[in-house]
Amino acid sequence: MSPEQREKERSVAALVAPDILDLLRSAPAAVAAETEELHPADLADVAELLPRELIAPLLAALPAGRAASVMEYLDEELRTEVLEAMDAEQAAGLLARMTPDERTDALEELDEATADEILEELPEPARRETERLLEYAPDTAGGLMTTEFVSVEETATVEAALSAVRGIARAGRREAMGTVYTVDARGTVTGVLSLRELLAAPEGARLVDVAWTEVVSVPATADREEVAQLTSNYDLAAVPVVDADHRLLGVVTVDDVIDVIQEEQTEDVQKLGGMEALEEPYMQSGFFTLLRKRAGWLTVLFVGEMFTAAAMARYQAELDSAIILALFIPLIISSGGNSGSQATSLILRALALKEVELSDWWRMAARELPSGLALGAILGVVGVVRVMSWHALGLQDFGGHPGLVATTVGLSLVGVVTFGTLVGSMLPFLLRRFGFDPASASAPLVATLVDVTGLVIYFSVALVILRGTLL
Amino acid sequence: MSPEQREKERSVAALVAPDILDLLRSAPAAVAAETEELHPADLADVAELLPRELIAPLLAALPAGRAASVMEYLDEELRTEVLEAMDAEQAAGLLARMTPDERTDALEELDEATADEILEELPEPARRETERLLEYAPDTAGGLMTTEFVSVEETATVEAALSAVRGIARAGRREAMGTVYTVDARGTVTGVLSLRELLAAPEGARLVDVAWTEVVSVPATADREEVAQLTSNYDLAAVPVVDADHRLLGVVTVDDVIDVIQEEQTEDVQKLGGMEALEEPYMQSGFFTLLRKRAGWLTVLFVGEMFTAAAMARYQAELDSAIILALFIPLIISSGGNSGSQATSLILRALALKEVELSDWWRMAARELPSGLALGAILGVVGVVRVMSWHALGLQDFGGHPGLVATTVGLSLVGVVTFGTLVGSMLPFLLRRFGFDPASASAPLVATLVDVTGLVIYFSVALVILRGTLL
Repeated sequence: MSPEQREKERSVAALVAPDILDLLRSAPAAVAAETEELHPADLADVAELLPRELIAPLLAALPAGRAASVMEYLDEELRTEVLEAMDAEQAAGLLARMTPDERTDALEELDEATADEILEELPEPARRETERLLEYAPDTAGGLMTTEFVSVEETATVEAALSAVRGIARAGRREAMGTVYTVDARGTVTGVLSLRELLAAPEGARLVDVAWTEVVSVPATADREEVAQLTSNYDLAAVPVVDADHRLLGVVTVDDVIDVIQEEQTEDVQKLGGMEALEEPYMQSGFFTLLRKRAGWLTVLFVGEMFTAAAMARYQAELDSAIILALFIPLIISSGGNSGSQATSLILRALALKEVELSDWWRMAARELPSGLALGAILGVVGVVRVMSWHALGLQDFGGHPGLVATTVGLSLVGVVTFGTLVGSMLPFLLRRFGFDPASASAPLVATLVDVTGLVIYFSVALVILRGTLL
Repeated sequence: MSPEQREKERSVAALVAPDILDLLRSAPAAVAAETEELHPADLADVAELLPRELIAPLLAALPAGRAASVMEYLDEELRTEVLEAMDAEQAAGLLARMTPDERTDALEELDEATADEILEELPEPARRETERLLEYAPDTAGGLMTTEFVSVEETATVEAALSAVRGIARAGRREAMGTVYTVDARGTVTGVLSLRELLAAPEGARLVDVAWTEVVSVPATADREEVAQLTSNYDLAAVPVVDADHRLLGVVTVDDVIDVIQEEQTEDVQKLGGMEALEEPYMQSGFFTLLRKRAGWLTVLFVGEMFTAAAMARYQAELDSAIILALFIPLIISSGGNSGSQATSLILRALALKEVELSDWWRMAARELPSGLALGAILGVVGVVRVMSWHALGLQDFGGHPGLVATTVGLSLVGVVTFGTLVGSMLPFLLRRFGFDPASASAPLVATLVDVTGLVIYFSVALVILRGTLL
């Protein structure tokens, strides 16, 4: 997005960016005070509006903690660029003040040599912690979690816990403080309570008496989708991540879960459109990356669709004697694809939201079959009306048998739409059953599967209805 | 979903449900103590596993506040059923203890007469508050917000604010306490700070000195998508909702924002599949609702696709002389639809995530045009190979001109895929430009638009290449 366009959207950033640009050039020392009240997200937007070479000076003009917060909201690509332009010591100074999960994410975007250099410059505890976090795959609970959370011995009193929290907050640590976890002497999580519940607890009570003992947690290897599911089911502010002995390793906070949900959705939409999901945002994906992600599936679908040519060749004699049949081919097979695409999108979302399970496939089939028949009947009637009215208006010559052609078109539509609906609804189940991602059941894939069968249905109906007249 | 299937998924609920069923029948008074430690979400799952007539008794066996929490996690349809089965006084007793936003949602699901009856039984302040919330449209910030939040006069000290928060927490109010808002004497929001920042603030400081003065807020009429966008951009735990004078009306909490994001995603996927979005989950939508949501678009697409028959009729003479052309029709036009579907899904997500704006349309066109050409060239080559190898293998007779047929197929593919890619990428912009929802640019709609033009491109290329030989 060009700076001009962005301005219209991001009013706060757009309003102050010119002033900050001037300040950076004339009196950089004044930038910190001038931007003090801006939300770090807005300040990150300001940075994105500046000429690229001024981003590092802007960050340098801010207090270190503040610059780190801005980094956390900066566009990933820009953040990588800024870190690569800095020397390792500077970069490490910024990263050290970022939250551990954001720091890890930022390092993962860098090339390995640069990341290693910066890692070595990090102060000792932060370096070890980051190295540990880098070991988790980015799409797992471990890859999402931050290690800055609050845990207190379960035997502590409410007052002691509160003053511990206060101490941690005053030390400037920033994340995941809305929830307090209680642990036993071995570090195993035994309970959870929100900061609000801690404040509400009677003075003098022990944590063990006021905390919830059923703690919803995930292992570090859990898929990020599972973390999102739990957050949404239990309305959690943070999901604790534990090791095999139920010791607390970290927590995934709700803001990261929202990012996960949005990234997963982008992937699902791209897959539903019939391509491989992009790893980067569209605007940041290069020409050849985009081409690769699209050409693969497009070629597979094309090769699949080649069977339509083979099917048509089988019916070449029929086409020769009744070329009128060719007219309705696109109309009929596309109706199968469209109804299949509807069914697929319905079932995919129901599966994603866990409204239905794999084992529900036959109930879904029983539900979709009458839907397909009804939808096919509706289109069939419209198709019959189309043929008969074109005949009545003299717009088209149906070889003297408009009624038979209309019947062929109508019955074929019932068959093709019913088949399309069934294929579209069952394909996600089939894919999951055989260990594939059901989201690969794209609209174009369903259309391709249905097209070949649609032709066979159409010509088979024609052979029955039109034999002895047109065929 | 049947209870049997659900059991596999929801282990906590499934494990305890049989015991609770027994208890409810033998010693209902013991249920409360037995389920004390369960998360209300799990207890709601237990309720969903019970025979429907036992849900009200289960709720009655719990302390009122606990029953209200369980109600908040209960499946909407079940919640409506339970409330309708109760007398108004009982229902009001439960609703009064729910958070104001959940209470409003629950009432909105009921038929008006029942809702009015229950409303009248609510204690006075809750009734007035609920009536006020019911006035906001459910898909606006006002319709999502809760009125239970913490605001403190900006002149108060940190200690006074903390003890106010503590008092409110102890009074058993439950939502939106992670963020404290400061207001001036006229009730205008002047600042915001998190509970953590309040705890970290130096003792004796005044709120006005420690709160952030740039408060991100929305008007009550703001669309729920805007609320979601702000939450995600600024990593907020709650979005304050204000009136025209910037007085605080309520807050939207992040758990509701996650629900909004998921509902919007479901709608987008269903629209992308070529149907109207459902208002209820798939499993709770009736047969005729589903049929209506699908039949509308399917018929529109069918009528649009009728132009393919008209286009084919125009080329009937060409088909008559070279029936071989008919063979490749599905292959060629589907490739246009597939490439268009890819482009649409890419652009739709980029628009939804605000990576691109309406004004970027020409930049996107400039980006997608070479992509379309390249993808078309790839498929074109595959198409040429297909024709030439079928000829070489003697699988198909191309009227003595395999090279010319191959050229026709190859060039048509370049044209059709390029056109499909452009239509697919521009359609969302066009729809938004003319005030429609860009998400209506479904894969089937793009395919339909591209099919007619695809035929025209194919036959035009054929007329040029094959004139004097096959045509």
